[in-house]
Amino acid sequence: MKRFKAIFVMAICGLFLSACGNLGSSSGTGSGGNSSNKGTQLTGQASQGDYQSVIKNGRYVTSKSRGVNVSQNDNQFNLKSFESGLLTVSKKVYSPSKYIFEEGQYLNTSTVQKWLGRKSKSNPDGLNPVNNKKTGATTRNPIYLQQMEEQDFMKQDGKKLTLSGVTVGLGLNSVDYYEKKNFGSTYETHISKAEANREGRQIANQVLTRLRKKAALKNVPITIALYRQAPNDSLVGGNFFSYSTNKGTATKINSWKAISEKNYVYPTASSKSNAGNSNDENAFENFKNQIQNYFPNLSGVTAQAHYTNKQLTGMNVSITTQFYSETEIISFTQYLQQAAQKYLPSNAPIDITVSSTEGVQSFLSRDNGAKKFTSHVFNSY
Amino acid sequence: MKRFKAIFVMAICGLFLSACGNLGSSSGTGSGGNSSNKGTQLTGQASQGDYQSVIKNGRYVTSKSRGVNVSQNDNQFNLKSFESGLLTVSKKVYSPSKYIFEEGQYLNTSTVQKWLGRKSKSNPDGLNPVNNKKTGATTRNPIYLQQMEEQDFMKQDGKKLTLSGVTVGLGLNSVDYYEKKNFGSTYETHISKAEANREGRQIANQVLTRLRKKAALKNVPITIALYRQAPNDSLVGGNFFSYSTNKGTATKINSWKAISEKNYVYPTASSKSNAGNSNDENAFENFKNQIQNYFPNLSGVTAQAHYTNKQLTGMNVSITTQFYSETEIISFTQYLQQAAQKYLPSNAPIDITVSSTEGVQSFLSRDNGAKKFTSHVFNSY
Repeated sequence: MKRFKAIFVMAICGLFLSACGNLGSSSGTGSGGNSSNKGTQLTGQASQGDYQSVIKNGRYVTSKSRGVNVSQNDNQFNLKSFESGLLTVSKKVYSPSKYIFEEGQYLNTSTVQKWLGRKSKSNPDGLNPVNNKKTGATTRNPIYLQQMEEQDFMKQDGKKLTLSGVTVGLGLNSVDYYEKKNFGSTYETHISKAEANREGRQIANQVLTRLRKKAALKNVPITIALYRQAPNDSLVGGNFFSYSTNKGTATKINSWKAISEKNYVYPTASSKSNAGNSNDENAFENFKNQIQNYFPNLSGVTAQAHYTNKQLTGMNVSITTQFYSETEIISFTQYLQQAAQKYLPSNAPIDITVSSTEGVQSFLSRDNGAKKFTSHVFNSY
Repeated sequence: MKRFKAIFVMAICGLFLSACGNLGSSSGTGSGGNSSNKGTQLTGQASQGDYQSVIKNGRYVTSKSRGVNVSQNDNQFNLKSFESGLLTVSKKVYSPSKYIFEEGQYLNTSTVQKWLGRKSKSNPDGLNPVNNKKTGATTRNPIYLQQMEEQDFMKQDGKKLTLSGVTVGLGLNSVDYYEKKNFGSTYETHISKAEANREGRQIANQVLTRLRKKAALKNVPITIALYRQAPNDSLVGGNFFSYSTNKGTATKINSWKAISEKNYVYPTASSKSNAGNSNDENAFENFKNQIQNYFPNLSGVTAQAHYTNKQLTGMNVSITTQFYSETEIISFTQYLQQAAQKYLPSNAPIDITVSSTEGVQSFLSRDNGAKKFTSHVFNSY
């Protein structure tokens, strides 16, 4: 928690510092670029399913609302899961083989901060309900919209890039945390799925209407996706549950498509029977027992499991150990390569990270469709 | 530093806890192993140049002096560099294709702790000189031997493993840090290369003689390697400078071979002109400028460069950034893949790690002989 506070403060500082910088450099006239770096370039594609992204005058084009979401999330898992989940939605609509990614350029920091606030006299643009002055968990108006992110997609025509699609993600609370007085105790308002869905759709409609008023976005396809934030104590982020694609002419949302995605943490607390899939969980438990038996002093073995349409589509295993020696880490990583292959579910991409208090010691990864794990031990000279 | 203290304390605690555990389980009769895991197994080889290591009854065979070196090093870089450097020496003598690695089984914690101490009435086995009661930096007897590690190498004959080689590394101080009174200021005794070499050889001879007195080591080849510890403020570990291979019958060391290895940190402080190779440093500087221009808010770009026989044989690049969004990390990693390929020295294995205060965000790696960097972005669901 302390660590998170620190990054929170750093992010806030960075936010104000970078807000000015961005305005200057994102217009494409930024100074300091090497002469060989004039004009627009692309980052290149690391692997086939990834977007290339835009470089202008040798500089990465950062988001106009850079850093806002860092400060909006008390649970860092919601931050990463929201952003990579939004990319997954975008890939369904704007194929990485045809479109180029650019960080959001049309919603700037002050706009996003106003929209994320409550509607009030001083903030008429707030997308969250007015403060009804009540403090009861069920009687007050909760904050529904916790974070939002814009992603832009360009098509390349010779040397020219044209904006050809926009995706906006809306992160909606499952729990709204609030205080009855400043620095007082924290209370919770729980928001049901149905309520979040209803409010999310209504907010999405307002967002679409407002975006259409911007000249650059008048005739561009706009996708809006709804995300349910995980509670602050969750060890895994929330998930997208619905999205809507809107033609360049649409000013109202006509239809929504459901997204079936779910995240779980293994091992599950025995009291809550919300496992994703008992086969996968058993496989993970066998793996865990095997490696804990093999290697003394493993202080934690947990996994994030990601399901799409009830199929396991990804797993991140975190192993925490005390560091005794580099040779132990090398041997342990070799053993993990065998054990993971033998015990963990096949047919899904899996990452395994071995960390100590000094940081990541080694990691293993098996890509989608690959048969074997590759491994890397972090060395130091 | 605070963080290091924490791990130091944890390691010490772990040390005492594990010291007993090891004695019980390392005899190969440990309980709790699955019935399917009886007997001796191997971990498998992650890549061609690595050793397989030994599993007994489903458990990893840990060192008999596990954790001592963690507590002996105030600079963690000396720890990793010592252990992986010792493996490199071992590979010269005991080929990974013919030998199997086992953590040291013949020097236990109490022996190593005695040997690392000063010679005295209560500790006649101390390999460091007696305390001459002087406190002047040049008049006192410094601690020469700071850490030591044993590595065992087995040959496989059917189901049987036979000890067929031992390597012992001796870590010798370049600076000995001391206090004139408890909890007082820290003073330094500098130890020249010549002095460390002379004392190291003399200690190595004593170690060989003592090891020969153990029945199991009477007729086994023993390699002893000398390592010069880096100062506590160094951002890179020390290096091995000499080793000696001794046949199964030798009780005295007859000859030493020189090892030409050096580590540097780039960028070098301008005041000290101790760069490894100006071409490599220029290449790194170009890379650094390029990516700092490209990506705002990089708070640090440094490299450890490792030279063998004056040739660059490895580089670890560390990039520290503030975390703004997952999409930035993805784009930045893609860009790094291009920039590293273009600017960093070819013909050497290179690791690049991108970290924020939350930990490692992504990493790139190019193996020895490989043409391209592979990359991995650490995701979270």
